[in-house]
Amino acid sequence: MLLLDGKKLADELKSEIKTETESFMAAGGRKPHLAAILVGNDGGSLTYVGHKVKACEQVGFKSTLLHFEDSISEEQLLNEVKKLNDDEEVTGFIVQLPLPKHINADRVIMAIDPRKDVDGFHPVNVGKVTLGLPAYVSATPLGITKILERYGVETAGKHCVVIGRSNIVGRPMSILLSGQSATGNATVTVCHSRTKNLREITMQADIIIAALGKPEFLTADMVKEGVVIIDVGTTRVTDSTAKAGWRLKGDVKFEEVSKKCAAITPVPGGVGPMTVVSLLLNTLKAAKHEVQ
Amino acid sequence: MLLLDGKKLADELKSEIKTETESFMAAGGRKPHLAAILVGNDGGSLTYVGHKVKACEQVGFKSTLLHFEDSISEEQLLNEVKKLNDDEEVTGFIVQLPLPKHINADRVIMAIDPRKDVDGFHPVNVGKVTLGLPAYVSATPLGITKILERYGVETAGKHCVVIGRSNIVGRPMSILLSGQSATGNATVTVCHSRTKNLREITMQADIIIAALGKPEFLTADMVKEGVVIIDVGTTRVTDSTAKAGWRLKGDVKFEEVSKKCAAITPVPGGVGPMTVVSLLLNTLKAAKHEVQ
Repeated sequence: MLLLDGKKLADELKSEIKTETESFMAAGGRKPHLAAILVGNDGGSLTYVGHKVKACEQVGFKSTLLHFEDSISEEQLLNEVKKLNDDEEVTGFIVQLPLPKHINADRVIMAIDPRKDVDGFHPVNVGKVTLGLPAYVSATPLGITKILERYGVETAGKHCVVIGRSNIVGRPMSILLSGQSATGNATVTVCHSRTKNLREITMQADIIIAALGKPEFLTADMVKEGVVIIDVGTTRVTDSTAKAGWRLKGDVKFEEVSKKCAAITPVPGGVGPMTVVSLLLNTLKAAKHEVQ
Repeated sequence: MLLLDGKKLADELKSEIKTETESFMAAGGRKPHLAAILVGNDGGSLTYVGHKVKACEQVGFKSTLLHFEDSISEEQLLNEVKKLNDDEEVTGFIVQLPLPKHINADRVIMAIDPRKDVDGFHPVNVGKVTLGLPAYVSATPLGITKILERYGVETAGKHCVVIGRSNIVGRPMSILLSGQSATGNATVTVCHSRTKNLREITMQADIIIAALGKPEFLTADMVKEGVVIIDVGTTRVTDSTAKAGWRLKGDVKFEEVSKKCAAITPVPGGVGPMTVVSLLLNTLKAAKHEVQ
């Protein structure tokens, strides 16, 4: 069984991004600058944005964190988005989700200039990805693609089963895996909460993307020998033996399933670390104007 | 075996659109106005645009055909698109594809105001459909959805196999069928030219969308008893016994496959007639400003 080590790969990619950024700047390119809008004081969001800012430092990007109170109005937030759209010093930016309930997140995302939308959440970017045109692929799917690519997991002609149809993971993964690319050309089955006979389908899978958010849902009796599994789940499960009082659990019952796998990502240390790196990749792409 | 009669359904829908348009105008709404840009003299394109103009008359829409020579430059064409974007008299418009080779079709489609993009080809509309947001669904997928809806074909929890991954049919159908809607919630497998063991997969299908463009490709030994089939193929096959010298053939070997079907669309008279009606539905939607 090959462990698809996202942590190690993320470190390698960061080092590559750092080198590429240095050459880009040596050739006269402007230092990539990622800005992040954070609203409120949600613990998870603070942590995630913190990781992103730190990662920028590691690769030699500039980063700016714009932190607003929960009480900011939608209009004020839209105005901040507009300022970042117009700011020539900013290469790309993200609006950390979730937003407070009085703000319409769709409207805020629609207001982002698609050329600076390094999270790849704007419908124009989603549409271009769907159509197979150059665009910003959102962070988690891009990270998974990189794992498949760097570990040489063959996808063409394989049967991939994607469990989950969220806009953030399942949907884009099913589109990318069945599209025409080096990590595509797979026969893809999209499963979700309404799927009957799920086991019958996962038993056929050469590759499984588990992205349903139910800890340890996928068990050994649901997969065939030699399967490759990407576990996107990250649920905090109470555990009194853990220092924090909880442990991160994936959607896959790792101990038993991994024994049947040709390759599998661990949780933590699999898809998670790749997500932040993907944001850096998109920001570098933006700096180089590779997406119009 | 139930014949899913697209011709009959299209006539019913046209009659409904006509009535709805009359009430809309009686309530002070402006007469819906569809414009079409046609470049060159391709026989197929002339026919298709002709059908669209005629259909507009049938339901009480205004229509305008803008016909340009093959020699029109991309810049001139983009300027015509801009004029239609700005023309308040025009509810929605289409640019008939294919365009001559010296014109970048992606660039032309990107120039269309998404609010007037009744063909649903602009990446913003594609992206919104992918995200499950209100948008213009392109004509063929919308037509298929209407067939499923009006004939009461249950999709939730069913295994749908989509053969083909084109941006026009296969891709949007796989997204719609697996999305959360009255004609969605299916488990969907996307198959294409790189799929191995296709028969093994089609044998599992409760519903098959055949959209690969190979006449009579799907044979009786590839489907199970009681399957529902939507045949999107329309290939002109030479036939000396036909008046025109050719006949329209679907992707399904109708004579033998239909015997095993619970329901199936014929070719011609199935999906084809529904496509033009879908354009009318989108134009009426545009007139009512139901998509922003």
